[in-house]
Amino acid sequence: MSVSPLIERLIDALRVLPGVGPKSAQRMAYYLLERNRDGASTLSAAIAEAVEKIGHCRQCRTLTEDDICSVCSNPSRDESKICIVETPSDVMMIDKVTGFRGLYFVLMGHLSPLDGIGPEELGLEQLAQQLDAGHVKELIIATNPTVEGEATAHYISEMARKRQIRATRLAHGVPLGGELEFVDGSTLSHAFNDRRDL
Amino acid sequence: MSVSPLIERLIDALRVLPGVGPKSAQRMAYYLLERNRDGASTLSAAIAEAVEKIGHCRQCRTLTEDDICSVCSNPSRDESKICIVETPSDVMMIDKVTGFRGLYFVLMGHLSPLDGIGPEELGLEQLAQQLDAGHVKELIIATNPTVEGEATAHYISEMARKRQIRATRLAHGVPLGGELEFVDGSTLSHAFNDRRDL
Repeated sequence: MSVSPLIERLIDALRVLPGVGPKSAQRMAYYLLERNRDGASTLSAAIAEAVEKIGHCRQCRTLTEDDICSVCSNPSRDESKICIVETPSDVMMIDKVTGFRGLYFVLMGHLSPLDGIGPEELGLEQLAQQLDAGHVKELIIATNPTVEGEATAHYISEMARKRQIRATRLAHGVPLGGELEFVDGSTLSHAFNDRRDL
Repeated sequence: MSVSPLIERLIDALRVLPGVGPKSAQRMAYYLLERNRDGASTLSAAIAEAVEKIGHCRQCRTLTEDDICSVCSNPSRDESKICIVETPSDVMMIDKVTGFRGLYFVLMGHLSPLDGIGPEELGLEQLAQQLDAGHVKELIIATNPTVEGEATAHYISEMARKRQIRATRLAHGVPLGGELEFVDGSTLSHAFNDRRDL
């Protein structure tokens, strides 16, 4: 009541951001209004423009403002390898830290029949067409190591098997730089059974 | 490079928010675009409207979209008491947790000669005029208990003394619910010297 309705509305609106609760939203609102109105205007414009212009790549389904994203339209990428991921941020991550120079396919989720998310919602028919076209030699299935991610990976590996295309999955094991003591049991057991010769 | 320039710009823009680093900004950007475009549009509009319409109350200098804020224009508030605070969020906080029903004066900062912030930048001439008008009986100086906040409090208490107006300062001491072990030395020493009879 003692606060202005516009500031209240700004605080409420900031709470849509993941990880932002009432206290941080309030801090952000006052920070923007008291100390960084230029930054606030830039942010408002950047959000509006992104919401308006960003859609999905027609080929790999990642988020992009173009019809075909910059990875898919890059002629130097190896189109015989497709890496399957759940989200656009996975594309960014894998492209940054691995030397992978093939193409991607972004599911925008994982199989989840209870939520009505089946193969069609993940664009798997579109993927099937790409596989049928015949130049894909390997599918690297990088869905998350969760129950749903594994089920999705299994489904896609079946699609590959039917077409005699090689399907691979990221290695599981102990993370680098961690201590064994803090690794969860199933990861440790997996890493133990998958041990390599030195 | 592999990421769309618009998404990059959105991620950069989100970093103006306090407490948001590159990782959270990326998470926020993808969350908004993948899962909450309506929330994103609402946020963009709320920021733009707040930046455009919110200015300072002509009487107490707090942030408001009105000429005179809802506290200053409320006839039931006691105009014989003015609580002096550094920021608009302090107004909100004090109004919520204390029973204070007087008026506020928001400095929008504290004295800081090295940054070129003197009495004029804090609106202290405007405050002097209000004090000279003659209906103020008490100034509650609630600046922060920092070096600059104390210096500002001292300056304002001099203004009050010259006009024979009572000036008070929030009590210092041990926070409720804390353990003495974790209270810093200067607070504990202050609380000890200010001990009360039971």
